[in-house]
Amino acid sequence: MTSSLSTRLTPKELEERLRAIGAERYHNRHPFHRKLHDGLLNKQQVQAWALNRYYYQASIPAKDATLLARLPTTELRREWRRRIEDHDGTEPGTGGVARWLVLTDGLGLDRAYVESLKGLLPATRFSVEAYIHFVRDRSILEAIASSLTELFSPTIISERVSGMLQHYDFISKDTLAYFTPRLTQAPRDSDFALGYVLEHAKTIEQQEAVLAALEFKCSVLWTMLDALDHAYVHNNIPPGAFIP
Amino acid sequence: MTSSLSTRLTPKELEERLRAIGAERYHNRHPFHRKLHDGLLNKQQVQAWALNRYYYQASIPAKDATLLARLPTTELRREWRRRIEDHDGTEPGTGGVARWLVLTDGLGLDRAYVESLKGLLPATRFSVEAYIHFVRDRSILEAIASSLTELFSPTIISERVSGMLQHYDFISKDTLAYFTPRLTQAPRDSDFALGYVLEHAKTIEQQEAVLAALEFKCSVLWTMLDALDHAYVHNNIPPGAFIP
Repeated sequence: MTSSLSTRLTPKELEERLRAIGAERYHNRHPFHRKLHDGLLNKQQVQAWALNRYYYQASIPAKDATLLARLPTTELRREWRRRIEDHDGTEPGTGGVARWLVLTDGLGLDRAYVESLKGLLPATRFSVEAYIHFVRDRSILEAIASSLTELFSPTIISERVSGMLQHYDFISKDTLAYFTPRLTQAPRDSDFALGYVLEHAKTIEQQEAVLAALEFKCSVLWTMLDALDHAYVHNNIPPGAFIP
Repeated sequence: MTSSLSTRLTPKELEERLRAIGAERYHNRHPFHRKLHDGLLNKQQVQAWALNRYYYQASIPAKDATLLARLPTTELRREWRRRIEDHDGTEPGTGGVARWLVLTDGLGLDRAYVESLKGLLPATRFSVEAYIHFVRDRSILEAIASSLTELFSPTIISERVSGMLQHYDFISKDTLAYFTPRLTQAPRDSDFALGYVLEHAKTIEQQEAVLAALEFKCSVLWTMLDALDHAYVHNNIPPGAFIP
């Protein structure tokens, strides 16, 4: 971790430091994502990505509910509850998790197999669960700060959607329906989280904790891609994981 | 996971299934370990292995204390407490964790840096913590079963010690002192754990859970080596991790 501070930052300086972490460590810089967006993966490798990423998507409502259960005020809970609604929807077939299954359907993966989680890379499981545990065990300030990767997600989503539509004939606009609402949801959510963090991270220790929380979250996303790259690009599939 | 049973196993059959999991999934079969033991790594790569593995070693007493806190009888707690004594020792400089630091010292790593955990691969952290969480959250039967990788460790330790002494001029018998007591401790511990599991895993569901627990634990060890292989053999070091 690189976030040792010598003096307390102003809110503006803290925001700059947070954005600098994203510029260096957000997973749009990972080789696997570059290959994904540049059309350098085959269908089986894209399947492996979507299958593993499903566990991340499906766990986000559990992550947010874990934080929801700890939030002290109605205002904070209302704000955070909206995230769960975005992901779980309001009726069958709606919400982000259901839309991710449209993507795995479109890639030809069996839905029951995807939902069973049987083919996950263990590193996917451990990374996603590390995120849930972080949100359960750390301070509310750190838990909210760990969501700040959404500051950087509109860029990667735009790159991803245009890159994948252009390069893969097995990808259509319909199968990428997951991403469209995220382009408005993510900025709304990250605006709130950033405002909260800048207001509440007052001491050096709190500011260091907030920076470390964002680094941690970047490492969750990065580790998931490292594992995909190692298993499905360099062909080191661990025992029990999805074999295309 | 592959452990779906159609009929209840006898204790002998259950033991055979457990040993078959080890034969297929224990990390002695991992390419990184084969390279480590065959002298195909350089000193920096061995440093990365010892640095990351330190976090596993240093967390084993926490893992065992987590289980100790849940065990219901004096007899079980006495048995399990011995594991903590083995790793933490009885005075400064004794015990498995201290002996692992003799290895990292011998490899030229700064002890304060090793103990700071600053250079860990995130995948190491997530894997080790997944193990601690498993032991905290699952049944006592599953927690004990997850220790059964020790059934297979005497073989890997013998291969490791002889292979590393033969191939690396920067490794001496003294720096490998960690492993000698493990050759007697691990069989004693795994004899107990195996006896417990064979006695208490009576229903199909319990037997499946026990088999899955051992598969889980194998995946913890395997994932740690996948991450080392990807970062330090294939040169994809993630942001913030040890740079040799």
